[in-house]
Amino acid sequence: MDLQLIDQFAKNIIFEAGRRIRTAFTYDLVVETKSNANDLVTNIDRETELFLIEKIKSFDSTHKIIGEEGMGEKVDSLEGVVWIIDPIDGTMNFVKQHRHFMISIGIFVDGIGKLGYIFDVMREDLFYAIEGVGAWYNDSPLRKLQPVKIEEAVIGINASWVAPNRHIHHEKVIELVRKVRGTRSYGSAAMEIAFVVSGKLDAYVSMRLSPWDIGGGTIIAKEVGAIATNLRGEGFDFFHQDTFIIANPSIHQELLEKYIVQYD
Amino acid sequence: MDLQLIDQFAKNIIFEAGRRIRTAFTYDLVVETKSNANDLVTNIDRETELFLIEKIKSFDSTHKIIGEEGMGEKVDSLEGVVWIIDPIDGTMNFVKQHRHFMISIGIFVDGIGKLGYIFDVMREDLFYAIEGVGAWYNDSPLRKLQPVKIEEAVIGINASWVAPNRHIHHEKVIELVRKVRGTRSYGSAAMEIAFVVSGKLDAYVSMRLSPWDIGGGTIIAKEVGAIATNLRGEGFDFFHQDTFIIANPSIHQELLEKYIVQYD
Repeated sequence: MDLQLIDQFAKNIIFEAGRRIRTAFTYDLVVETKSNANDLVTNIDRETELFLIEKIKSFDSTHKIIGEEGMGEKVDSLEGVVWIIDPIDGTMNFVKQHRHFMISIGIFVDGIGKLGYIFDVMREDLFYAIEGVGAWYNDSPLRKLQPVKIEEAVIGINASWVAPNRHIHHEKVIELVRKVRGTRSYGSAAMEIAFVVSGKLDAYVSMRLSPWDIGGGTIIAKEVGAIATNLRGEGFDFFHQDTFIIANPSIHQELLEKYIVQYD
Repeated sequence: MDLQLIDQFAKNIIFEAGRRIRTAFTYDLVVETKSNANDLVTNIDRETELFLIEKIKSFDSTHKIIGEEGMGEKVDSLEGVVWIIDPIDGTMNFVKQHRHFMISIGIFVDGIGKLGYIFDVMREDLFYAIEGVGAWYNDSPLRKLQPVKIEEAVIGINASWVAPNRHIHHEKVIELVRKVRGTRSYGSAAMEIAFVVSGKLDAYVSMRLSPWDIGGGTIIAKEVGAIATNLRGEGFDFFHQDTFIIANPSIHQELLEKYIVQYD
């Protein structure tokens, strides 16, 4: 398997998809709601996913694709080459802000993450990694994450998880918010993951993410030493929604033990 | 007073200050702490403020300047022409993320906000307004804000205010977090204000801001119909720290009455 060839191809279709999305802003945007009003989907999400699927299938028809919009075939194992794609992560930002949304792609070979991409469409910023080789932000290598103390950390966490909720002990989250240097929330999991792998945030947590939200990011994480797990400290379940944390390795365990604690 | 001339001059020094800051990233950054560890200041903040002051004083030595770093003279009234400047709003973002920080400038004439600027230094994005004439995002006019329902609103609010705190009833903030479509937090007041005036957020609240955080923004707000007050619904106190809310006019009052409620 020529990973370098797949890497070059993946970058090409990501840049091309980005150009199509930026152009599409000049046309009208049709916004529908999926399962609920907070889960927006637009015609451009769907078109971008279809575009990516067609390109990948004509590149190699044996590659399988898991996509957010479900336009691909049914995939029930990570055997062979599997692309996990999110054409637009951060749809609400896309619709309302016209920025802060990402194309996220992870390419797995027999269950092992090999190539990961997070592309900030409006900034044209690419975070990516090749397993065992390294990670880059555009043309610059991303460094291994340096240790950080919890008091100096900036954490990506949404206000929802500071309020009482059925997932985690919010009193402990309140302690965390008071302890750290700052918190941020951007409305795009892939953006927050990209910020963690590049040291712009020191951790990011969420209570329910899907494989396509994190597929690309977890592969980049490994190359810079960021630790990505669910809230039980296990590998993320790529066939269901799951809880998620990605953190600087110096605070991952402390966060799970003291501050981001699930109800039993 | 030739406002158009001042406007052109202000834009010139903002763009020039932005270029200087972007160049400075190639040099080392000296980070000190001011009053506490969360209040970072760098040599570039100071140099940028000095640069702006020198330019303004040589443009017109009668103009007065209130600056975050306190490098200007003591100003105790808004009589005459007063510039309220923040060379880098979002210093923590500046240091850690190398993005999401703003130059913010408001120009007041005898207490009336005449010209307002928020400049995203890394994106080179300028939000600005001329009182009574209009507001712009780069070359595009900013539209009057359209009504929004609270259920559909996206609100800029930091996790700190969802936790119990001595300023506002956090139980009501929790209700708000559950009611709205989403919340965001970017770590730069000027950035969040720029997002409200351009409809990317529907409101932003903070418990303690200084004049330079909001001087430019409140002038832009007026031109697009955004309402900016303190949490008592009064005009912001430009000589002290104060609470602050800026919101789409359709939800400003509802937010203050039901969700962002100060302790007596």
